[in-house]
Amino acid sequence: MSEENRIVQQLTPLFKPSSVAIIGASATPMKFPTWITSTALKSSFQGRIYLVNPKTKEILGIKTYPRILDIKDNVDLAAIILPAELIPGVMEECVEKGVKAAIIFSSGFREIGEKGIKREEEVLRIARRGNIRLVGPNCMGIYSSEVNLTLSIISFREKGEIAFITQSGGYGIEICSSAMSRGINFSKFISVGDKIDIQDYEYLEYLYQDPDTRAIMMYIEGIEKGREFLNTAKKVTRRKPIFVIKIGRTIEGSRAASSHTGALAGKDALYDAVFKQSGIIRAYDVEELFDYLKAYLTQPLPKGNRVGLLVGSGGVGCAATDKCIELGLQVPEISEENKEMLKAILPEFASVRNPVDFTASGAQGIFTNTQVLKKLFADPNIDAWFFGGFTSSSIAEIKDIIEQFRPVIDKINSKDLMGEVKVPLVGSMDENDIVRPIMEKMFGAIFYPTPERAIRAIAALHRYRNYLRNKEAEDSNY
Amino acid sequence: MSEENRIVQQLTPLFKPSSVAIIGASATPMKFPTWITSTALKSSFQGRIYLVNPKTKEILGIKTYPRILDIKDNVDLAAIILPAELIPGVMEECVEKGVKAAIIFSSGFREIGEKGIKREEEVLRIARRGNIRLVGPNCMGIYSSEVNLTLSIISFREKGEIAFITQSGGYGIEICSSAMSRGINFSKFISVGDKIDIQDYEYLEYLYQDPDTRAIMMYIEGIEKGREFLNTAKKVTRRKPIFVIKIGRTIEGSRAASSHTGALAGKDALYDAVFKQSGIIRAYDVEELFDYLKAYLTQPLPKGNRVGLLVGSGGVGCAATDKCIELGLQVPEISEENKEMLKAILPEFASVRNPVDFTASGAQGIFTNTQVLKKLFADPNIDAWFFGGFTSSSIAEIKDIIEQFRPVIDKINSKDLMGEVKVPLVGSMDENDIVRPIMEKMFGAIFYPTPERAIRAIAALHRYRNYLRNKEAEDSNY
Repeated sequence: MSEENRIVQQLTPLFKPSSVAIIGASATPMKFPTWITSTALKSSFQGRIYLVNPKTKEILGIKTYPRILDIKDNVDLAAIILPAELIPGVMEECVEKGVKAAIIFSSGFREIGEKGIKREEEVLRIARRGNIRLVGPNCMGIYSSEVNLTLSIISFREKGEIAFITQSGGYGIEICSSAMSRGINFSKFISVGDKIDIQDYEYLEYLYQDPDTRAIMMYIEGIEKGREFLNTAKKVTRRKPIFVIKIGRTIEGSRAASSHTGALAGKDALYDAVFKQSGIIRAYDVEELFDYLKAYLTQPLPKGNRVGLLVGSGGVGCAATDKCIELGLQVPEISEENKEMLKAILPEFASVRNPVDFTASGAQGIFTNTQVLKKLFADPNIDAWFFGGFTSSSIAEIKDIIEQFRPVIDKINSKDLMGEVKVPLVGSMDENDIVRPIMEKMFGAIFYPTPERAIRAIAALHRYRNYLRNKEAEDSNY
Repeated sequence: MSEENRIVQQLTPLFKPSSVAIIGASATPMKFPTWITSTALKSSFQGRIYLVNPKTKEILGIKTYPRILDIKDNVDLAAIILPAELIPGVMEECVEKGVKAAIIFSSGFREIGEKGIKREEEVLRIARRGNIRLVGPNCMGIYSSEVNLTLSIISFREKGEIAFITQSGGYGIEICSSAMSRGINFSKFISVGDKIDIQDYEYLEYLYQDPDTRAIMMYIEGIEKGREFLNTAKKVTRRKPIFVIKIGRTIEGSRAASSHTGALAGKDALYDAVFKQSGIIRAYDVEELFDYLKAYLTQPLPKGNRVGLLVGSGGVGCAATDKCIELGLQVPEISEENKEMLKAILPEFASVRNPVDFTASGAQGIFTNTQVLKKLFADPNIDAWFFGGFTSSSIAEIKDIIEQFRPVIDKINSKDLMGEVKVPLVGSMDENDIVRPIMEKMFGAIFYPTPERAIRAIAALHRYRNYLRNKEAEDSNY
């Protein structure tokens, strides 16, 4: 079997188990094991969940087993939430039971020093002996949309297309909550913890072939097995993008990281080189990460770096231009044909150069004229369009459309209205503006709170597309 | 009279007029003059508003005058919304009427080329002859909270403490709407337009003495009268901060600016030097601007650059540390006394170094222990505190507090609870988290969506404070 297939086979019981045992299950209010237990029971997991706790007969109305060995059924996956000192013994039982994968939530390993490192080695030795693959320790668990399994402390309500690999458990959970409150949902969540066994490249290998995952985001403090990571990431980004946040950019930040996970962060410049070589897109905070993901999931990749700016106020055009140029995008003139078309319908003081400035009064009527928009969006000089400087008052006709279409708003399909738009459409508009969701619906565009964030998202798509094209060129040279 | 007093005296009729004439008032639906007219009439202006339009007898139930000269009462301020070619004639009438200030909304001046420049010169000559000070042309008007006057296209509902000077009309309006939807309100709004008469430094001079204005924000494309601007800004920032967005950072952005306003943006590095010399804080997009304003309006200035990080998850501590170091802030150890205090109450695996990592379970109980918090916030080693990595699930006791205090939530006063906290308290938490407004209420803290934005806001306050201290040192040396 190839190394790749071996990894996928070994991680399958983690993401698609038939049965799970929660060892240390609890119902004591306000305790971590209770959150894990109740969240798991509430998730509509397609397999069986067994609860293990020697001190109770039942938890939340469900029978408990004193030990995992008392369960008659096979157990694919064990979720272990026990004090660290009990874990070696429990791992022995897991081996005996024939468990295939385990998640160790508990802390009390390398981050507490020598005693913890010894414990980690012991646990790993036992697991290897029984061919058990380990997530953690010191982690916040996993979510797998494939089988509706949540072994963590928050509920993943809606299935999404993003897999999230995070080295920080607590922050990872916070990032997930924040994402979901913005409508960004997940196919997988993996809190990798101390990574004593399964490494990032192995999770990536699994996600490479995961049909539920269209894009991957990572929060990284440090990576071991750098060579394997680079090679796997190179392969994965050919099929789906990887967006990362890597902390420890400064010596102090890196020291903070190693003190809480015991990981060595390593030189930031080295990571940057790995990211560039493997086509990974780096973001510098969580909002930036979300911005990129939203653009990727809703828009096609731009074929080049030429951006058309459609604005309702000159200031927005200037701000967007500045950001384009700073990020290596161009703002070239639109085609002569489209210039002529716009001149015929816009007021005299509007500008048909790029930024195309409709001006406040000129914008009236434009966004309901799909013939004009279709021609613009097919402009041969432009690879991506930005809209900005329009508000519900400057394009008041859109408000009329809202009233008109409110009963069927969910049925509006930008493809019916606009045909197949082959370039990304991004815009900036206040999040509370009532026309924003309508513009998104009508044109299939994606909006951001500022012009700068919208342009930055286009630039990230362009960077990814550029990486892919260079790779294709390399391929065709061989 | 000093130059300063002269400016304040001349701009007083603009911001505190007794009577206003809207020349070109209209009620034709969906037209710009109609928006201005109806917004002005809806604002609870304390003086009198006269409508001038030779083609109607009344507008919205209010009598109209054919010409401004037909109004018997004195007119302090004229708001002119007419085609550009009519404006010289109307200005003559304003001079005859004894108008003291005028706002010219219309475009059709320098941005249309030579004909427009001639027109601008003519209008200015007439205004100077009659001692009329001009706002615009090509602008979106003003708002003045002093007298509840709005001569613009959006309503300013609530009085705030921020004055906003903007060179882009349309974008300026969008920025205001966006600010207000986030709870940021204004004392003044000034869309300066082409600035053919009143210059930025004159507005700043007026705002310097304006008791309603605690902070100033500016959107700048280019500044004329650079020397006067520098000197006035230096004076103003000693009393209230100025936060700016300056576009035209790139040649292309600057060209886009000059094509829509006719302004020359000039070299960006020159502006940067002016901002640094005068203590102006530069932001690079609107969200950053808002972040700084919110921090300034709610928090004291930090006395130094030493930041304490209180986190519920290690990852947030790392991210915050990185950002602190990158922005020139330090993350030193907290005092021995406070370390001892925390060791006594936190679990063994928590960290009392900085970042102070309560860990998810350790955070329980901390935020209701005001004695502990008071001692922390008075730590002699720390000039500003950051909270992050807490969510409504990790600090569930806060949820109980919400339930307990919901009936009196508006009466919670952080001063009653915490005493006088002399250091800024900023945090990061998802905007939808229910404990966020409670934390703000209880501790008088201000929260941002990401740790990076929270730290950036502290850094901006620190930069401003540092500027002020250097100036004070200079003063005491003379």
